[in-house]
Amino acid sequence: MTLHFEDLAVDDEWTSGEYEVTEAEIREFAKQYDPQWFHTDPDRAADESPYGGLIASGWHTAAMSMRLLVDCLLGDAATIAARGVDELRWRRPVQPGDRLSVRAAVEDREVDDENRGTVRLRIETTNENDEVVFSMIGIVLFARRQE
Amino acid sequence: MTLHFEDLAVDDEWTSGEYEVTEAEIREFAKQYDPQWFHTDPDRAADESPYGGLIASGWHTAAMSMRLLVDCLLGDAATIAARGVDELRWRRPVQPGDRLSVRAAVEDREVDDENRGTVRLRIETTNENDEVVFSMIGIVLFARRQE
Repeated sequence: MTLHFEDLAVDDEWTSGEYEVTEAEIREFAKQYDPQWFHTDPDRAADESPYGGLIASGWHTAAMSMRLLVDCLLGDAATIAARGVDELRWRRPVQPGDRLSVRAAVEDREVDDENRGTVRLRIETTNENDEVVFSMIGIVLFARRQE
Repeated sequence: MTLHFEDLAVDDEWTSGEYEVTEAEIREFAKQYDPQWFHTDPDRAADESPYGGLIASGWHTAAMSMRLLVDCLLGDAATIAARGVDELRWRRPVQPGDRLSVRAAVEDREVDDENRGTVRLRIETTNENDEVVFSMIGIVLFARRQE
């Protein structure tokens, strides 16, 4: 059943599967979109980074989180558009070998008109130690179910 | 000269080069990170999307904007970390053939301690018609120059 605005109640929650972070993917993403040495150069990162090695681009973490969200929530939903995101925060480094998972919860919902409504989703991405590495509030426009 | 906190004054501005958006890259990014049909399936998008064809994942637009920012501003900067982003908004669809460019301006800056300071950067991504497609406020921690 495709998820519509009516199907989303405040405090509804979803938990995703896992996404395993690899060094190869960290470097590939960063080479294209965020070519800073702490994302692309493992030797320099081993020597100079306070984290002792490569960390993922924050935008890569956002993108991996989106993939987990699509697989557990948005993949069969009547979304019209994503308006944006508030309070996006990178809370801890994401490193090769991390296994990420996403929790999403409805924080607020509001009818816009007879056809659609806006939902604020609180999203947290955790690693395999259940430490929050990334969080944000997504603002998503859903279609209302037509009777 | 590597950009430090002291080099960033309120209202300083940067303008990036251009990034040309291709259908192949829209589909490749979305296949990995945002597999929704309006990003991945050109035939269905031509038939069913209000935009008449594929649009880029919002996270792809963010990633392309980051690449432009690295090339014009962050590539030679003493950044310690990006704390996060406020008020991220996807304002218009990004489509194949669009040529994106980024403007960044210092909105606010604050000393944290003797070693570092936080800078709020207002970032706007425009297309070749100078329409804003994406905007956000980036919160970035820079090293202070040591005398």
